Amino acid sequence: MAEAPTAQQQEVLSKKAQKKQLKEQEKAKRKAAAAVAAAENEQKATEEEGDISVGRYGVLPIVQSSEKTDRVWTRIGDLTEDLVGSRVLVRARVHTTRATAKQCFILLRQQHFTVQGLLYVSDVVSKPMVKFVGNLNREAIVDVEALVKASPEKVTSSTQENVELHIETLFVVSDSLPKLPLQLDDATRQRKGRDQQEDSAIGFVNQDVRLDNRIIDLRTVTNQAIFRLQAGVCRLFREYLTSEGFVEIHTPKIISAASEGGANVFEVSYFKGSAYLAQSPQLYKQMALAADFEKVFTVGAVFRAEDSNTHRHLTEFVGLDAEMTFKEHYHEVLDVLDKMFVYIFKGLRDQYVTEIATVHRQFPAEPFKFLEPSLRLTYSEGVEMLREAGVEMGDEEDLSTPSEKLLGRLVKEKYDTDFYMLDKYPLAVRPFYTMPDPRDPKLSNSYDFFMRGEEMLSGAQRIHDADLLTERAKHHKIDLEKIKSYIDSFRFGCPPHGGGGIGLERVLMFYLGLDNIRKTSMFPRDPKRITP
Amino acid sequence: MAEAPTAQQQEVLSKKAQKKQLKEQEKAKRKAAAAVAAAENEQKATEEEGDISVGRYGVLPIVQSSEKTDRVWTRIGDLTEDLVGSRVLVRARVHTTRATAKQCFILLRQQHFTVQGLLYVSDVVSKPMVKFVGNLNREAIVDVEALVKASPEKVTSSTQENVELHIETLFVVSDSLPKLPLQLDDATRQRKGRDQQEDSAIGFVNQDVRLDNRIIDLRTVTNQAIFRLQAGVCRLFREYLTSEGFVEIHTPKIISAASEGGANVFEVSYFKGSAYLAQSPQLYKQMALAADFEKVFTVGAVFRAEDSNTHRHLTEFVGLDAEMTFKEHYHEVLDVLDKMFVYIFKGLRDQYVTEIATVHRQFPAEPFKFLEPSLRLTYSEGVEMLREAGVEMGDEEDLSTPSEKLLGRLVKEKYDTDFYMLDKYPLAVRPFYTMPDPRDPKLSNSYDFFMRGEEMLSGAQRIHDADLLTERAKHHKIDLEKIKSYIDSFRFGCPPHGGGGIGLERVLMFYLGLDNIRKTSMFPRDPKRITP
Repeated sequence: MAEAPTAQQQEVLSKKAQKKQLKEQEKAKRKAAAAVAAAENEQKATEEEGDISVGRYGVLPIVQSSEKTDRVWTRIGDLTEDLVGSRVLVRARVHTTRATAKQCFILLRQQHFTVQGLLYVSDVVSKPMVKFVGNLNREAIVDVEALVKASPEKVTSSTQENVELHIETLFVVSDSLPKLPLQLDDATRQRKGRDQQEDSAIGFVNQDVRLDNRIIDLRTVTNQAIFRLQAGVCRLFREYLTSEGFVEIHTPKIISAASEGGANVFEVSYFKGSAYLAQSPQLYKQMALAADFEKVFTVGAVFRAEDSNTHRHLTEFVGLDAEMTFKEHYHEVLDVLDKMFVYIFKGLRDQYVTEIATVHRQFPAEPFKFLEPSLRLTYSEGVEMLREAGVEMGDEEDLSTPSEKLLGRLVKEKYDTDFYMLDKYPLAVRPFYTMPDPRDPKLSNSYDFFMRGEEMLSGAQRIHDADLLTERAKHHKIDLEKIKSYIDSFRFGCPPHGGGGIGLERVLMFYLGLDNIRKTSMFPRDPKRITP
Repeated sequence: MAEAPTAQQQEVLSKKAQKKQLKEQEKAKRKAAAAVAAAENEQKATEEEGDISVGRYGVLPIVQSSEKTDRVWTRIGDLTEDLVGSRVLVRARVHTTRATAKQCFILLRQQHFTVQGLLYVSDVVSKPMVKFVGNLNREAIVDVEALVKASPEKVTSSTQENVELHIETLFVVSDSLPKLPLQLDDATRQRKGRDQQEDSAIGFVNQDVRLDNRIIDLRTVTNQAIFRLQAGVCRLFREYLTSEGFVEIHTPKIISAASEGGANVFEVSYFKGSAYLAQSPQLYKQMALAADFEKVFTVGAVFRAEDSNTHRHLTEFVGLDAEMTFKEHYHEVLDVLDKMFVYIFKGLRDQYVTEIATVHRQFPAEPFKFLEPSLRLTYSEGVEMLREAGVEMGDEEDLSTPSEKLLGRLVKEKYDTDFYMLDKYPLAVRPFYTMPDPRDPKLSNSYDFFMRGEEMLSGAQRIHDADLLTERAKHHKIDLEKIKSYIDSFRFGCPPHGGGGIGLERVLMFYLGLDNIRKTSMFPRDPKRITP
């Protein structure tokens, strides 16, 4: 069977090639379906015939912790020329096999590393053993003892190009069903361009199939990289803020009243009453500051009962929230957030080179560009740029999604950055707790941040005075009874403060230039999906 | 007015003293109630009389970010003898004031640091200014310019004992209501012993009053320390696991089916259908391992709809979860968890000396003891110790809470440790997905960890084989349809694995020897409380 291209050697396949491959895959599936039975028969026949390889291959009993040995395990990523001549023990997945009667190639995979194993009939390897290995199910987990040899020519189908494993023993630790709901090679195939509807094309995997079978889909090199990057964003976020004296807090998800007006909130049955799921940690972050914690951050689930089925909305996402007191001006907050993003962008760029390259092999995108310090424009400067480009809009109008994206392109052209801050939004388009501008009553001390032309942080100076907050809530026609406890938390002295809320999945999606937020959420939730 | 004791000079107050204090507090409240009006009149009178201090005191307009200056701010914690002779600018809360006609003392507080400020009538300080400062509301936030002077004798009522601030200007940045729902000094008063019902005693603050007014309660030095320690536990947990190659993941809280049997789960209205809140990230951690992430951890909200009103149950808490694959034996997992806890305990002990001491001043407890490596007992060894102490129990019986606590005391006596692991629980008392022991069908590859005699981690080797899992689920009479997707996630090859789930609030509560989990949750949730 021809070997499907791996992430390391992806090429644009012609339709013809795709068809051919599809046929081969079907053939492979049929073959695989027969494998378990065949293997069992083989093993029997084998024993009868006096198989010289008995004890060198087969299926292990379930690993139930019955023994501890001091055997040393080698990682596939560590298999280099330095190990040529040594015997190694490896636990890995069967990525693919390719066999004839007398020999067999097996591509072994461990996360994003692969190495070629081989096996041929010899004085210790029997025909039945070769057949057994050739019939292994893809994705089965096996323990392999092998001799490391230099490969006669570069094995371009594996990440470890210069060595190959000459297999001496092979045992199945955990088998896979022969028929996989999706093929990893299909799930890793390079998309041709941003607008291509690759999901429905032959040889690609539809997004719902991916998500329905997420445990297999997540095994692709691309997903292995994406979720390591996701962990990186969180780590860098916390690292920077911790170094700046921020305290991590945890805020409740179950709340008694819908804090921000009442729309788009999920209701929960709570013993004999009911409660709601928090749409943000906003109130609790502010309460922590009113309680003298000065600078806080929190990472946690945020819930939005919005029936939005778009590329960038989820009903549950991970919020990275920061809030801090300041002395004179909310730009003290902006300065911290600015440096924090630069720290995150640099950290990703410098510490995740391989992961970023891996993602971009499947989903090509320009490297993410940013400035230091970050570009800061006012909202009216942004509106001016849009108007010059022919967009008609009012001074107090919010940016539409197309305008956001256009502005992103204009900013990129003019300033060569994919990240910028837009400061001083019109007061009318911001939540009631936003501090008005001290001079222009139509403006506010608020800002959004954008990556590749899409918003991923919204923040502001918050009103820390109970009377002004009451006045603004009345202006917004908000039921004062419902937000009484919120307003009351500012009655016992509260320092001026501001902050912002970031959507983790959005930051990663835009950083990598991906087209759908479901690619950066491990188990995404939207109005139509709450499984797996 | 006599100064109430601060955390730094707490003493057991006699009932008489408490009564006296209570009277004084009421007096202070009456005084405070008149302060705002008085200050306003004062200011007016002042201007008429030609107050020499005009422009040196008063109430600032709301800080609305109208100016940026390059003024330098000093932190109270940095006010030492080195600064004697210099002028400083400080933003702080008014902790207490004490005034005569001609002079005024004011204790300024910033988180857990306090410094004494003073003010007396002079050629630049007018009588009205002294009166204004003397009448300030407790908890108001003020900006103070002052000259740092060496204090003639140690100011034992403040953390900065060797200096005092001679106030030159003072402005209110954010005022407080004159009547506080609780007094910080009452909320910080040292409890006398573990069994004392201090909550209802005079001069102490009842737990519900604390929680109802959490933003004020959280300002106590004790709470400032507790939640810094909480952030520390999380940081150390992640630091250790990240250094060991674990990947942080985020698991959904909204799930389609109650994974672990169906009891104790909160239901959520989800658009036109319904969903549930996850009782643990268990299934998702395991899926991440089936998806080749090898070692994962997650920190997030966990929900339990248990109507338990005890000292150690919450309906929403923060779960610190870790799960990893292993090669041969689940003790590979135990070894990692062992080292992780030692890392956390050492980190707390060495990096949070002040915070731990601060908490123990109010809530006295023995320092937390641990061994390295940690003590590991088998369940049957534990049962044996209990039997020797007179407890009657069967081999396959679970530990009752009193037995747990007794065993903790016996272990402490024998091994001098507050932390230990109990391995190899009876299979009958563990969840269906627990791996049975390979030799004794009555035992399982599972463990609990204990701190000061109470359980705070539960874990095990999980069954990674779909057939065995099905068999065990049937044995537990679990509806297979409901856990189909869970079982199916083991059908495409899954490595042997194990892990554990930790309750953050419990770890901190037991580490500090506190008596109630509501003390280590910033905004606790229980069957009777979902506010604030």
